[in-house]
Amino acid sequence: MTTTAATPVAGNRAMNFIYRFDQGDASMSGLLGGKGSNLCEMARLGLPVPPGFVISTDVCDQYHSGGGSLPDGLDADIKANVHLLEKSVGRTFGSADSPLLVSVRSGAQVSMPGMMDTILNLGINDEIVEGLAAMMGDPRPAYDAYRRFLQIYADVVLEIPGETFEEILASHKEKAGVEQDFRLNPEQIRGVISDYKVAIRSASGDDIPADPWRQLTLAVEAVFRSWNNPRAIFYRSHNGISHDIGTAVTIQTMIFGNLGPNSGTGVLFTRNPSDGEQKPYGEFLANAQGEDVVAGVRTPQPISSLAGMMPQAYQDLMGLADKLEGHYADIQDMEFTIENGRLYLLQTRSAKRTALAAVKAAVDMANEGLISRDEAILRVDAEEMVQLMVPQFKLDPGSNEMKSALLATGFGASPGAATGKVYFEADRAAEAAAQGIPVILVRPETKPDDIHGIIVSAGVVTRRGGVTSHAAVVTRGLGIPCIVGCEGVQVDPDQGFFSVNGLIVREGEDISVDGATGEVYIGGLETVDPDMDGMTEAKEILEWADQARSLGVMANADTPADALQAVAMGAEGIGLCRTEHMFLDSQRLPEVRRMLVNAEAAEQWRRNQPDGVEEPAPGADLPAGVEDFYGALENVKQLQTEDFTGMLRVMGSRPVIIRLLDAPLHEFLPPYDTVQAELAEMRRLGAPPEEITDKEAFLLLVESLREENPMLGHRGCRLGLSFPSIYRMQVEAIITAGAGLINEGIEVNPEIMIPLTVHVEEMRRLREDLTAAASRVQERLGVKVAYKFGTMIETPRAALTAGAIAHESEFFSLGTNDLTQMAFGFSRDDAQAKFLGSYVEQGILPGDPFATIDADGVGALVKMAVDAGRKTRPDLEVGICGEHGGDPASIAFCHDAGLDYVSCSPFRLAVARLAAAQVAINHAKT
Amino acid sequence: MTTTAATPVAGNRAMNFIYRFDQGDASMSGLLGGKGSNLCEMARLGLPVPPGFVISTDVCDQYHSGGGSLPDGLDADIKANVHLLEKSVGRTFGSADSPLLVSVRSGAQVSMPGMMDTILNLGINDEIVEGLAAMMGDPRPAYDAYRRFLQIYADVVLEIPGETFEEILASHKEKAGVEQDFRLNPEQIRGVISDYKVAIRSASGDDIPADPWRQLTLAVEAVFRSWNNPRAIFYRSHNGISHDIGTAVTIQTMIFGNLGPNSGTGVLFTRNPSDGEQKPYGEFLANAQGEDVVAGVRTPQPISSLAGMMPQAYQDLMGLADKLEGHYADIQDMEFTIENGRLYLLQTRSAKRTALAAVKAAVDMANEGLISRDEAILRVDAEEMVQLMVPQFKLDPGSNEMKSALLATGFGASPGAATGKVYFEADRAAEAAAQGIPVILVRPETKPDDIHGIIVSAGVVTRRGGVTSHAAVVTRGLGIPCIVGCEGVQVDPDQGFFSVNGLIVREGEDISVDGATGEVYIGGLETVDPDMDGMTEAKEILEWADQARSLGVMANADTPADALQAVAMGAEGIGLCRTEHMFLDSQRLPEVRRMLVNAEAAEQWRRNQPDGVEEPAPGADLPAGVEDFYGALENVKQLQTEDFTGMLRVMGSRPVIIRLLDAPLHEFLPPYDTVQAELAEMRRLGAPPEEITDKEAFLLLVESLREENPMLGHRGCRLGLSFPSIYRMQVEAIITAGAGLINEGIEVNPEIMIPLTVHVEEMRRLREDLTAAASRVQERLGVKVAYKFGTMIETPRAALTAGAIAHESEFFSLGTNDLTQMAFGFSRDDAQAKFLGSYVEQGILPGDPFATIDADGVGALVKMAVDAGRKTRPDLEVGICGEHGGDPASIAFCHDAGLDYVSCSPFRLAVARLAAAQVAINHAKT
Repeated sequence: MTTTAATPVAGNRAMNFIYRFDQGDASMSGLLGGKGSNLCEMARLGLPVPPGFVISTDVCDQYHSGGGSLPDGLDADIKANVHLLEKSVGRTFGSADSPLLVSVRSGAQVSMPGMMDTILNLGINDEIVEGLAAMMGDPRPAYDAYRRFLQIYADVVLEIPGETFEEILASHKEKAGVEQDFRLNPEQIRGVISDYKVAIRSASGDDIPADPWRQLTLAVEAVFRSWNNPRAIFYRSHNGISHDIGTAVTIQTMIFGNLGPNSGTGVLFTRNPSDGEQKPYGEFLANAQGEDVVAGVRTPQPISSLAGMMPQAYQDLMGLADKLEGHYADIQDMEFTIENGRLYLLQTRSAKRTALAAVKAAVDMANEGLISRDEAILRVDAEEMVQLMVPQFKLDPGSNEMKSALLATGFGASPGAATGKVYFEADRAAEAAAQGIPVILVRPETKPDDIHGIIVSAGVVTRRGGVTSHAAVVTRGLGIPCIVGCEGVQVDPDQGFFSVNGLIVREGEDISVDGATGEVYIGGLETVDPDMDGMTEAKEILEWADQARSLGVMANADTPADALQAVAMGAEGIGLCRTEHMFLDSQRLPEVRRMLVNAEAAEQWRRNQPDGVEEPAPGADLPAGVEDFYGALENVKQLQTEDFTGMLRVMGSRPVIIRLLDAPLHEFLPPYDTVQAELAEMRRLGAPPEEITDKEAFLLLVESLREENPMLGHRGCRLGLSFPSIYRMQVEAIITAGAGLINEGIEVNPEIMIPLTVHVEEMRRLREDLTAAASRVQERLGVKVAYKFGTMIETPRAALTAGAIAHESEFFSLGTNDLTQMAFGFSRDDAQAKFLGSYVEQGILPGDPFATIDADGVGALVKMAVDAGRKTRPDLEVGICGEHGGDPASIAFCHDAGLDYVSCSPFRLAVARLAAAQVAINHAKT
Repeated sequence: MTTTAATPVAGNRAMNFIYRFDQGDASMSGLLGGKGSNLCEMARLGLPVPPGFVISTDVCDQYHSGGGSLPDGLDADIKANVHLLEKSVGRTFGSADSPLLVSVRSGAQVSMPGMMDTILNLGINDEIVEGLAAMMGDPRPAYDAYRRFLQIYADVVLEIPGETFEEILASHKEKAGVEQDFRLNPEQIRGVISDYKVAIRSASGDDIPADPWRQLTLAVEAVFRSWNNPRAIFYRSHNGISHDIGTAVTIQTMIFGNLGPNSGTGVLFTRNPSDGEQKPYGEFLANAQGEDVVAGVRTPQPISSLAGMMPQAYQDLMGLADKLEGHYADIQDMEFTIENGRLYLLQTRSAKRTALAAVKAAVDMANEGLISRDEAILRVDAEEMVQLMVPQFKLDPGSNEMKSALLATGFGASPGAATGKVYFEADRAAEAAAQGIPVILVRPETKPDDIHGIIVSAGVVTRRGGVTSHAAVVTRGLGIPCIVGCEGVQVDPDQGFFSVNGLIVREGEDISVDGATGEVYIGGLETVDPDMDGMTEAKEILEWADQARSLGVMANADTPADALQAVAMGAEGIGLCRTEHMFLDSQRLPEVRRMLVNAEAAEQWRRNQPDGVEEPAPGADLPAGVEDFYGALENVKQLQTEDFTGMLRVMGSRPVIIRLLDAPLHEFLPPYDTVQAELAEMRRLGAPPEEITDKEAFLLLVESLREENPMLGHRGCRLGLSFPSIYRMQVEAIITAGAGLINEGIEVNPEIMIPLTVHVEEMRRLREDLTAAASRVQERLGVKVAYKFGTMIETPRAALTAGAIAHESEFFSLGTNDLTQMAFGFSRDDAQAKFLGSYVEQGILPGDPFATIDADGVGALVKMAVDAGRKTRPDLEVGICGEHGGDPASIAFCHDAGLDYVSCSPFRLAVARLAAAQVAINHAKT
C-alpha cells in the first residue's frame, strides 16, 4: 500500500470514501458535489479556504443502498482526516483548550439551495463551549454558537421540529424583555441552552451526544438522510434533477470572524448582481459571524468600509476577487471571513443575478477582453432573456410581503407580472375592461369562445390544462401573462368566486399573477415594466448572437401589431400566421359563424351543380343557407384581405407563412352545454315558437359537430377538402392583399401553408385547386404575386411520408405540438393534470415533451421529415412553428436536425436568437 | 404506312383507337377492358366467338378530356372494322337483305356488373326489321328485337326514362289481354313500336336515327358517357375502383339463336357455382335469344337436354368447357348461342360462386391435378372464407324479395345474417333477451356501458362510427353480426323508434341485418347456418394453407368460450385477451366500478404510508373509500383468477397474451349526461337529501374523469402507473390461475402485456413492480409459472423507440388500430362519418386505413419497430393484434415485415390462415 500526498488517507480501497480539498478539483462534482469540488478547486488554486475534506457521493449511494448505514471503515477515515485539520489550524477537535469546530454540509452535483441540511459549530459541548468563550474573549458568541448548534443538530439529526426551540427562545426573550436574539446576555443564553436540553431529552428520549466524534458520525448520516427529505425530492422533481446522483458531505474547519476587532465576515459580488455594473458589490460586518449578518444583529457596512478598517485584508480580498473572476470568467458571489486579520474564503460561486446583470456582465467581460464574444453568448441563460421583455413585480420574490400574499402556484405558461381585478366569465371581463378596469380572467379552462375575454385581460389563470393548452398558446401569442394547471384554485364561475384552501376571492377583488413562476397572489402588487435603459447590452449580445447563429429566427404572429413587435424583436419573418385567430375577433365571429354553420349546406348545393360550377352566378336564386354562406364568405374574404394586407405590409420582403383554417368548426361555435342551457331557458320563459325552433336547429348543428376526440377530428386540410370554398376564399384574400401592396410598390413574400396533411394526395388536390384560384385572382388583377405553397408536418404519417409530400410542398413547417400529441398519444388538454405531471415528477419521462422536444421519439420523426423532404426537394425550406421553437433545448435540437429556422412568440425571440447562437458556438467548438 | 394483319386498321397513328379481337390478348385489359381483352384472348385461342372489335379505354379518356367529343378519325376506323365484320359473317350492316346487327357493350378493366350500359341489336330500322323477319322466318322475334333496341337505345343514348316504355308496353298487353311480353303478336308489337316512336319524339324532340352508322356513333358516345353515371361512380367508390381507368367499347356481331329449331342459347357453368360439384351445370333454350331466358319467355331446360337435341353442338360445347376450364384453371361461366347449328361462345369468365363452391372447386381441381395445391390456395378469395363461418340469409341477395325489403345500407362491420326484434336501449334489449326474444340492437352508437345489451343481441346496428368503432370491435370479438355507420337510419332511442326515409320502425318490430354487406332489411328474413357438411374441402384447404404459411395465426379472445372456438378454428394461441372485456360483464361491473371509483382515494392513502407499505395490513382501520377499494380489488381478483383459469385451461401449452387494463376508467362508468339526468330527476322527485348528496358526489367523479380527447388520455399503462394496485392484482390473478393449473398437471404459457407504452421507463418500472408481484405469488404458492413480459406497440413513439423498449420487453404486439389513429390523427369514432368516407370515395386515400394497414405510414412504423426491436433482442416475438390481423392485404404486409404471427377474431381465423398461405406462396414464386 503506497500513500502519497495525492492519495486519500484510506489508500487504495476499491472506492475512496474521502477526498481532502487538495485531492479534488472542479471536474469531480459528480463525486464530490458542486460545493465540495469547488472548494477542492479553490484549494488547488491556492485560495485561502478553511481546510477540510469531502465524503463522496458514492458513500451516499452506499448509505441508501445499504439500508441506511454508513460503510465500514468510514469512521476511521473521518478521524484520520480530522486529525489532519487539527494539524493544519493548530486547534484540537474535542478539546476545550483551543477547540476545533467543524461545519458539516451537504452538496450535490447540482445546486439545490436551501433544500438540504447543514450543521455548524459541530464539536462543541458543555466543556468545550467554555474553552471557546475564552478563545473569543466573550462568552456570548460562544454560548450562542452552542445554542445554535443544539437547535440545528436537534432539527437535522434528531428531526425535532424547530418550532419547539423557537418557542423556548421566544419565552426567554419575553422574560428578558428583549426583542432580538443577540440582546440576550450570556446567562440568559445558558438558560435557553438548559431548556433546549430538556426539550431534546423529552422529544427524543436522549441527550445530544457530548462526544464530538459521535456528533460527527450522526451528522454525516443525517446529511445523507436529508437527500430524501420531502422538500428535496420535490425540488429535484420540480427542477428536473435526477434522484440518483446523491449528495456529498463537506467537513470543514469553522473559522471565526468574531474573535475581536481584527476579525469579521462579509459577502462580495465581483460585479453588481442586479444590473451587472462592473464594480465590487457587497457588505461586511466586523467582529461577527456570518449568521449575524443574516440575523440582522447589526447592519452590515458597504464592502468599501473594509478598506479603512483592515487595509491588508481588503487588498487581499480585492486581489482574490480579480483572481476568481478571471479564473471563472463569471460574476462571483464570495463569502469570506477574516479571523484575526487572516482572510478566509468560505465559498465562491457564479452569482445568482438578474437576466439584465447576466447580460451586462457578459457583454462587459467580452468588451474587457476577459472572455470572447462567443463565451459571452454562452454565459447568458437563454431562457432568462424572456425576463427582459416582460413586466416584473417591484418586490423581490423572496420578500416576506410576497410570501404572505402567495395564494397558489400553477404552471407559468406565458411570462410577465400582472395585477388586476378578478373576473370569471369572458363576457364580464370584456365589460369590465371596456370601463378601463384591469382584468385578471380566472377560468376552469379557456375555450376559443372566451377569446374576447382573454384579449382584454391583463392576465389569465386556468385551473386545468398544461403549458400548451388553449389558454397558454393564445396568451403567449398575445403576450399576456398566464398561469395554467393551477389546481389549487377552485373556480366557480356561476357563483362568481374562486377559493383556495377555504379562502374565497370574489369577482372584482384584486389579485396578481406571475406568468413566469406560475404564482398567484392576493392583492394588487405593483409591477415595473422592463427597463429599456438597461437594454443596450441586450441589443449588443443579440447582435453578436445573430452573427454567430446559422438558424433563422421567425415569429408566430397573427396581427399587424404582433408583426411589428416581432420585427422590433428581430424576427426575420413570420413563421406562423394563424388565420383562425383572425376569425376569433369578437366583431368578426358572427360573420365567421354564419359562414361555417352554412358551409355544409353550401357544399351540398355545390356538389349538385354541373361540373365546373364552383360558386353561384351573381344574382342567382339560392336556398337561404347557401345564400348566407356565400354572403358571409364574401364578407370574411374582405376582412381577411385587410388582415393579410396589414401583415404583409409590416413584413415587406420578409417571408410570411400563412396557415389556412386549421381549427375544427365547432371551435367557432358556443359549447353544446351552453346552447342546451339557453334553449332550456327559452322554453322556460315561453319564448316565441320560431325562436325556439331556430335554437333547436342551432343545437342540432352544434351537436352534429361534436367529436369524441376533436384533436383527431375534422380539422385542418380535412376541412379544406370538405369545404373547398373556404380555403379558396383565404387564398384569394392572400393574393388580393399581395397584389394591392405590389401596386403600392411594396415587395411581399406570402407562403401558403396547409395544415394537418397526412397524405401527399391531400396536398396535390389542394395545390391544384388553390393554385388555380390564385391564378384567377392574379389574372383578374393583372398582378403577379410570388408565393410559396407548403404544409405543416404535424402528424406522424406526414413525417413518415415526407418524401412524397415534398413533391407537392415547397416548404415544411414542423408542428411539433401536434406531433408530440400524436406520437405520445397525449392530449395536451388533459395529460398534464391527469398523468403527465406525475410522469415528470416521478422521472418516468425526463421532462415535459410539450416544453422541450422529445429528441428520441418526436425528434426522430422530425429528422425523418427533414431528410426525406430534402431528398425529394433539396431546396425545401424547413422550420418549426410549435411551442418548441422558443425553447432553448429544442432550438439546439433544431440546429442539429438541420432546420432552416425556428419560429416562436415575439416575446421569446430574444431567447431563440441567443439559443440559436449558443448551439452554433457549441458545435463550432466540437 | 404499312398495314399487316396484326396492325390496327388505323395504322401507325400515335395511338390506336381500335383493336380487332385477333389483335388483343388477356394482358391488355387496361386498354381493352376486362370483357374486350377476354374476347380477344378467346379469339386468339381459336374459340368460336362472334367476330368483333374493341375501342380502347384511351378513347374514353380522350372523349372525357376533350369535353365529350369523339376524337377525329374514330368514325372512319369504326366503319373500316364493321366492313371486316361484314366480310367475316357474310351479312351487311345497314342492309335489309341479310342484315348484320351488332351489340355495343361497355367494359372496364375491373368488372362492374350491371353498372354501365349495353345496347343490343344495333343497326336496325323500319326497313331492316323486315329483312330480319325474313331471315328469321318469323316476324315476332324480329319486331321484338326492334322494340327492345328502341327502348334500350332511348334509355341509354337519349336518357329517356325506361318507365315511359314500360307503361306503353303494359297498356298494349292489357289491351291484348296478355300478361307476358312474348304473348304479343307481331301486329301488336308493331303497335308498341309505333307508340315508342311517338314517345321518343315527344321526349327528345327527334326520332332515333334510322341511319345505322349514326346509331353506332351515338351509342359509342353513350357508353363513354355512362362511365360517369351516378350509379357507376357510386359502385366504383364503394368497391375501391379508380375513377380514372375508363371503359372500352366492344362492338360485336349479333348472333341469333332464334333462327329455328337448330338454333338456341344457353349458359354453362363448368362446375356447380353453388356447391362446387364437378359436373357441368347450366340451362339451354332452343330457338331463342339470351333475353328470352332472362325474361322467362319459356322455361329453359337443363344443359343435358342439348345432348339429344343437337348432339354435335353439345359435344362442341363440352369440349369447349373442358378447354376453357383447363386454360383458365377456374370454374367458367360461359354464355353461348347456337345459330343454325353453329356454336358461338358469347362470353366466358371465372364464375361468380359461393365461397363454398370456390373452396370445393379449388380443392377438387388440385386433387384432379388440374392445378397445384398452392394454386388452389391462391384461387380462393381469403376474405370470402368468413362466409363459411357465419349464417346467411336463405333468399338470394339479388332476389326481388330481398331487394324490396332493403331499408338502408351501412358498413358491414361483423359478418353474418341475423333477424330479430328491434330494441334501442341496452337495458330494454337485455330484458327482451331474458324473455327469449331475439334482439337486434339499434343505437346511434354504442359505448362500453351498452355491453350487456350487445352481448345478448343477435345483431347490432349503429348509425355512427366506422368499422373499428366500439360496436364493430366488440361484436367482431363476440361473433355478432353488426352494421355501423348506417347513416340512413335516424335513431331516436328516447321515443323508441328509428326512421328511414320517413318509414318508422318501432321497438319490437322485426328487422334483419347482414353484417357482411351492411344491409338492414325490414321483416324477419329466414337465415341458414353454415353448412358443415360442405366443410370437408374447407378443412382440407386450410390444412394445406397451414403447411404453406410461415406466419403464425392466433386469435383475439376474451372468454373461455371464445378460446374454445378459436382452437376449433385453428388458432395457435391467443394473441390478445382483453381483460377489461372481462370487467364489463353486467354482474361484475358493479364490483369493478367500486374498485375504480375509489382507486384515486386508495392511491392517495397508499402514498401517505411509510415506504414499502403497498397495501393495508389485514384488519387495518381504513377510511371508507380505501376500504371499498381494497375490498373490491380482492373480489375482482377472484373473478379475474377464474377468468384466467378458464382461458389458460382451454389453451394449455399454447401462448395466451393477456393485456392488462387498457380502457380509461370512465368507460366503466355511466355517461356524464346520464348521471346528470338521473340527478335532476331525483331532485325533481324530492329524493332523500343523502341520496342526492351521493349522486352529486358520483357526478363529480364522473366529471373528473371526463377528457377532451379520451383516445389520447389517461388509459393503458398510464393507469397502471397511476394505480399500481390494479395491475398488480391482475398479475397476481394470472399467476394464481397458472399455478392452479400447473398443480393439475396442465402446462400454461401466459404472456403479460402492457398497453399503450410510450417510453421504455414505463416498462422498466412496471416490469420491476409486476415481476416482484408475480414472484411473491409464486413463492407463496410454491409453484413456478413460466411467463413472458411484453408490450403493445400502439403509439408512434413506442414504434420509434422500440429498440429501447425491447430491452424491457420479451414480445411486441402491434396495436395497429391505435397506431393508425395516432399516425393519421384520425379518431376512429368520428373519422368515418366526418371525412374518412369521403376521402376514400374521392380517392384521396387509397382505402380505409383502419381496414387495410397503411403500408407507407403506419407500415413504416411497424417495420421500424420490428427491426429495432429485433436488433436489441433477436428472439423478440412480434405479432399484430389490431383489426388488421384478419385482413388479407394487411396479413401480406405482416408477412413481408417479418412478423411472427397475426391475431384476429375467431371468425376470421380461416381468412387469416388462407391469406398467410397466399402471401407465402406468392413470395416463393418471386
